[in-house]
Amino acid sequence: MQKRNKTVAVIGAGDYIGGEIAKKFAAEGFTIFAGRRNGAKLEPLVAEVEAAGGEIHARSLDARKEEEITSFLNDADKHAPLEVCIFNIGANVNFPILDTTERVFRKVWEMACYSGFLAGREAARLMVPRGQGNIFFTGATASLRGGPGYAAFASAKFGLRAVAQAAARELGPKNIHVAHLVIDSGVDTAWVRERIKEREGADALAKLPADRLMRPQAVAEAYWSLYQQPRDAWSSEMEIRPFGEKW
Amino acid sequence: MQKRNKTVAVIGAGDYIGGEIAKKFAAEGFTIFAGRRNGAKLEPLVAEVEAAGGEIHARSLDARKEEEITSFLNDADKHAPLEVCIFNIGANVNFPILDTTERVFRKVWEMACYSGFLAGREAARLMVPRGQGNIFFTGATASLRGGPGYAAFASAKFGLRAVAQAAARELGPKNIHVAHLVIDSGVDTAWVRERIKEREGADALAKLPADRLMRPQAVAEAYWSLYQQPRDAWSSEMEIRPFGEKW
Amino acid sequence: MQKRNKTVAVIGAGDYIGGEIAKKFAAEGFTIFAGRRNGAKLEPLVAEVEAAGGEIHARSLDARKEEEITSFLNDADKHAPLEVCIFNIGANVNFPILDTTERVFRKVWEMACYSGFLAGREAARLMVPRGQGNIFFTGATASLRGGPGYAAFASAKFGLRAVAQAAARELGPKNIHVAHLVIDSGVDTAWVRERIKEREGADALAKLPADRLMRPQAVAEAYWSLYQQPRDAWSSEMEIRPFGEKW
Amino acid sequence: MQKRNKTVAVIGAGDYIGGEIAKKFAAEGFTIFAGRRNGAKLEPLVAEVEAAGGEIHARSLDARKEEEITSFLNDADKHAPLEVCIFNIGANVNFPILDTTERVFRKVWEMACYSGFLAGREAARLMVPRGQGNIFFTGATASLRGGPGYAAFASAKFGLRAVAQAAARELGPKNIHVAHLVIDSGVDTAWVRERIKEREGADALAKLPADRLMRPQAVAEAYWSLYQQPRDAWSSEMEIRPFGEKW
Repeated sequence: MQKRNKTVAVIGAGDYIGGEIAKKFAAEGFTIFAGRRNGAKLEPLVAEVEAAGGEIHARSLDARKEEEITSFLNDADKHAPLEVCIFNIGANVNFPILDTTERVFRKVWEMACYSGFLAGREAARLMVPRGQGNIFFTGATASLRGGPGYAAFASAKFGLRAVAQAAARELGPKNIHVAHLVIDSGVDTAWVRERIKEREGADALAKLPADRLMRPQAVAEAYWSLYQQPRDAWSSEMEIRPFGEKW
Repeated sequence: MQKRNKTVAVIGAGDYIGGEIAKKFAAEGFTIFAGRRNGAKLEPLVAEVEAAGGEIHARSLDARKEEEITSFLNDADKHAPLEVCIFNIGANVNFPILDTTERVFRKVWEMACYSGFLAGREAARLMVPRGQGNIFFTGATASLRGGPGYAAFASAKFGLRAVAQAAARELGPKNIHVAHLVIDSGVDTAWVRERIKEREGADALAKLPADRLMRPQAVAEAYWSLYQQPRDAWSSEMEIRPFGEKW
Repeated sequence: MQKRNKTVAVIGAGDYIGGEIAKKFAAEGFTIFAGRRNGAKLEPLVAEVEAAGGEIHARSLDARKEEEITSFLNDADKHAPLEVCIFNIGANVNFPILDTTERVFRKVWEMACYSGFLAGREAARLMVPRGQGNIFFTGATASLRGGPGYAAFASAKFGLRAVAQAAARELGPKNIHVAHLVIDSGVDTAWVRERIKEREGADALAKLPADRLMRPQAVAEAYWSLYQQPRDAWSSEMEIRPFGEKW
Repeated sequence: MQKRNKTVAVIGAGDYIGGEIAKKFAAEGFTIFAGRRNGAKLEPLVAEVEAAGGEIHARSLDARKEEEITSFLNDADKHAPLEVCIFNIGANVNFPILDTTERVFRKVWEMACYSGFLAGREAARLMVPRGQGNIFFTGATASLRGGPGYAAFASAKFGLRAVAQAAARELGPKNIHVAHLVIDSGVDTAWVRERIKEREGADALAKLPADRLMRPQAVAEAYWSLYQQPRDAWSSEMEIRPFGEKW
């Protein structure tokens, strides 16, 4: 592995997608700054990255707090120039609109949209003066479609997509690649497997075909391919799904 | 004018679009409940509606407060069954993303998205037991496109559109028509004329062609046509613009 | 009924949607020019319109032939100024792409897209010099989504939608309202009922709930509402579906 | 270069995009089958590919003729299994709708849509039995938007996109990756440079900033990245533009 004097910040470095993104960019020689609500849960990721010869800094991070986002990204940038900031916090909930409390609606927005705005803006502040950088946001089916039961989640994800679009249009000409990755499928996580079990039964889960879920590693690869795009052919949005997915 | 024993709530009954909606539905015999931040500013509207033989109840309403929305809509519904709830609060601001404070981002969302969610949900609570009603939301170009400078505004408007979509899918089968009206143009208001003057000069404003701006009355007519749709041919979204608009 | 010295051309005046459009505009006092492949099949429509005191001219029309379209619209315009041209020819087929012959692909395009282009262009030629007119196109779910089995049909409907968009942008500033009406549901026709029977059984058809299909009259009403729009609030596209439709 | 026993067919192997796609896949070890209207014009491409150690078979191909498409793809597949089929024929014309002859409308469709359908279907026929393959289509801004003057071109490109969508949904579960690449910008070709000169003057062309046009090589790279996607994270559509593009 060739070390690069550049950092990659992963905000929302969860056990699946976020962790895989961190491992991928670490394996490519970047120093990772990984943040999640409870930083202690990052220990296995740190161990895995370091065992593979990578460098990673793990932090507890409440991304809804402006000062925490600012100091997290500033720390990364002080370590080495912040090359990529990936915002990967989800907050997938499903409630009929009549059962959606104002507290849930607000909290989902704070986690999935507001904190994404803060992350994008603070990353841009560090990148604009250098005229270089990449800001990526994780989207979902609910970024494009307000399905039944998704008033809160789709509202937040739509809002995050708007932030990505405005940022892409403002920052692209400044050589900062802003992209929104729409994961239009279930990802293979414990949580998704649990939902399938709930809805379709243990048997359906046991027989889950290989084409049904997306590996978290595939998401990490998609981010890597966005990062590899030459600047005369940037995607501002990329939509991915498994080959067997109905859509 | 034939009186109807039904109420129409206009949340965001401003001097232009909201006021015209109120006048239109009042002229069609509905009792209007009109709310805006500073209820005192509703006096001219009340005078105009009453002079024309209509009935209107004007209220100060901070639509970001759940309890105020609830009591506003409950009062309307106690007066006579709430037939239509129109959410018409905008919060059009334009700032480069780097200059968008967390306070602005949050406030625009509270005004243009969060309060729309509250209004839609509370209206639905009153309408669902009756199996009858209409919930309409005012959208804008920024509901569909995150243009430069619109990180905050587009994020809120995208989010409101998602609420409308989820609500339409959940409530349509319950005979409640949920629609999102996208006004893809400038509307003829003092504020818009001022923006044109700022950007293009007093001369351009003076020579503004008739086809450039949309009359607030035309928006009211569009809402009326949505209300007139038979239930086997509902639009969940309608986009309107002047004939001379470039898009 | 107040007679108007204006004509409405309905290209594709079939037994359901096209016929209802003709009846609606005839009832509003317009003289109808109705064309369909086999003009003899228009006799019941003519009888019904005339019994109601309306005026209608029925013609055999192969809309894929430029000279036929031209003379059909010219005849209408000679009778009285052509106020509205509605293109309503469908060609709904569903074949796996591997089973879609080049003949089917071409024929569906000629019926559903190419003839629509001819109709729109020829109507525009008559309307542009007067600076007045309306050109409406009937779209479908397949106008927006290339579903499985719809390579031919969706390709034609996508293509027609592009014609409508280009025409709307070119002709709007010339005071010609071009609109594309997306019927996102099954319409209550013999053909659709037969499809439901095939796919879901005779029992399902017998128990078909009232909210499942759209009445052809509702489509005619949607066109009428498009025609009623003031020119500072035109829709270039309108999507309609029954209240119980899943989408 | 490691040789692979697989062929890549490029239909529309023009001097710019198509040629670069051929060179890229040849450099990756695939045997190229390159077709364009006038096969003699492929000589420089053949020379370049062979000089670099690649293998390429050049053919005259009128892609609007079913039997030519069939035999072109069959020949490729006989040589070695057809791994990728890329349809890259454009037909960019701009005429006001009133000046769009039926001949132009039909010809543009035959070149840009109908021949794409033929190519996709024939490639699928070869790939489906093996349960393996990739079918890619080149799209443009006009695939998504019917701009003024683009009735013919956008209609064809919309239609091609529908073919790609239907094919993606039908063939994805059969392990065939169908994707539509939207090039939302000018590409650096002699033709585009000529158009810029016409519209903006020789001076503007001389001072053309580096961020304005996309290199044909960047398009080839985008296709390569689509080909590299793991099958649990396929994009069915990818949109690319230069960093400085306004959209």
